[in-house]
Amino acid sequence: MLGRLNHVALAVPDLQAAIRTYEATLGATVSVPQPLPEHGVTVAFVDLPNTRIELLEPLGTASPIAAFLAKNPKGGMHHLCYEVADLATAAAHLARNGARVLGDGRPKIGAHGRPVIFIHPGDMVGTLIELEEV
Amino acid sequence: MLGRLNHVALAVPDLQAAIRTYEATLGATVSVPQPLPEHGVTVAFVDLPNTRIELLEPLGTASPIAAFLAKNPKGGMHHLCYEVADLATAAAHLARNGARVLGDGRPKIGAHGRPVIFIHPGDMVGTLIELEEV
Repeated sequence: MLGRLNHVALAVPDLQAAIRTYEATLGATVSVPQPLPEHGVTVAFVDLPNTRIELLEPLGTASPIAAFLAKNPKGGMHHLCYEVADLATAAAHLARNGARVLGDGRPKIGAHGRPVIFIHPGDMVGTLIELEEV
Repeated sequence: MLGRLNHVALAVPDLQAAIRTYEATLGATVSVPQPLPEHGVTVAFVDLPNTRIELLEPLGTASPIAAFLAKNPKGGMHHLCYEVADLATAAAHLARNGARVLGDGRPKIGAHGRPVIFIHPGDMVGTLIELEEV
């Protein structure tokens, strides 16, 4: 069922500082930041040869990453996103195995314009997992 | 400087349970667990088309992931490992940019038999970063 690792998402308190760390200190290429008000984040991508690191900074007053940053004020790894060919099949398979999909269980349009679901970290060895249909 | 994302490491309290989650619930392929007493972990790899997820369970009484699991008893994302062509060049570049290498600053032989360094998470937007020479 699992395809590629689409991205690793890092929640960061200061996107410009995170971009400087990845560009200057680690010598990586980072995309221009893009505000996504409907998702409550501003996002920039670190481009690696085989995948991407998604840098997320809270945007607005009800950001979905605000609670995470309150607990981890310096930032940290927020979720992993795996690709799947068919989200409906994936969701049915998860349900059969007792893994809880967050929200109402139905796919939403994610930050990249594709259908996504998030799986409860309690059912995923402590890690928040996003599945994206590609 | 940064090459491929070599792996994402997840610390897990129960490796067999984590393998079941990745195999049965997520439909991935996981390697046979390998005890690495000299590193204080037992490791298994989730093989993805573009990278690997490293599942780490503590081994022995002084495991380097014991403190992390005491704070995160269900498990969680422990570190990211990026590939670099030359660790000496990378370490010099990090030092010029004020990023602290853990331990005595010199490369050690990592869990995959290659030279590695770890960078202080406080200098890496809250994320423990491993650099592996490939």
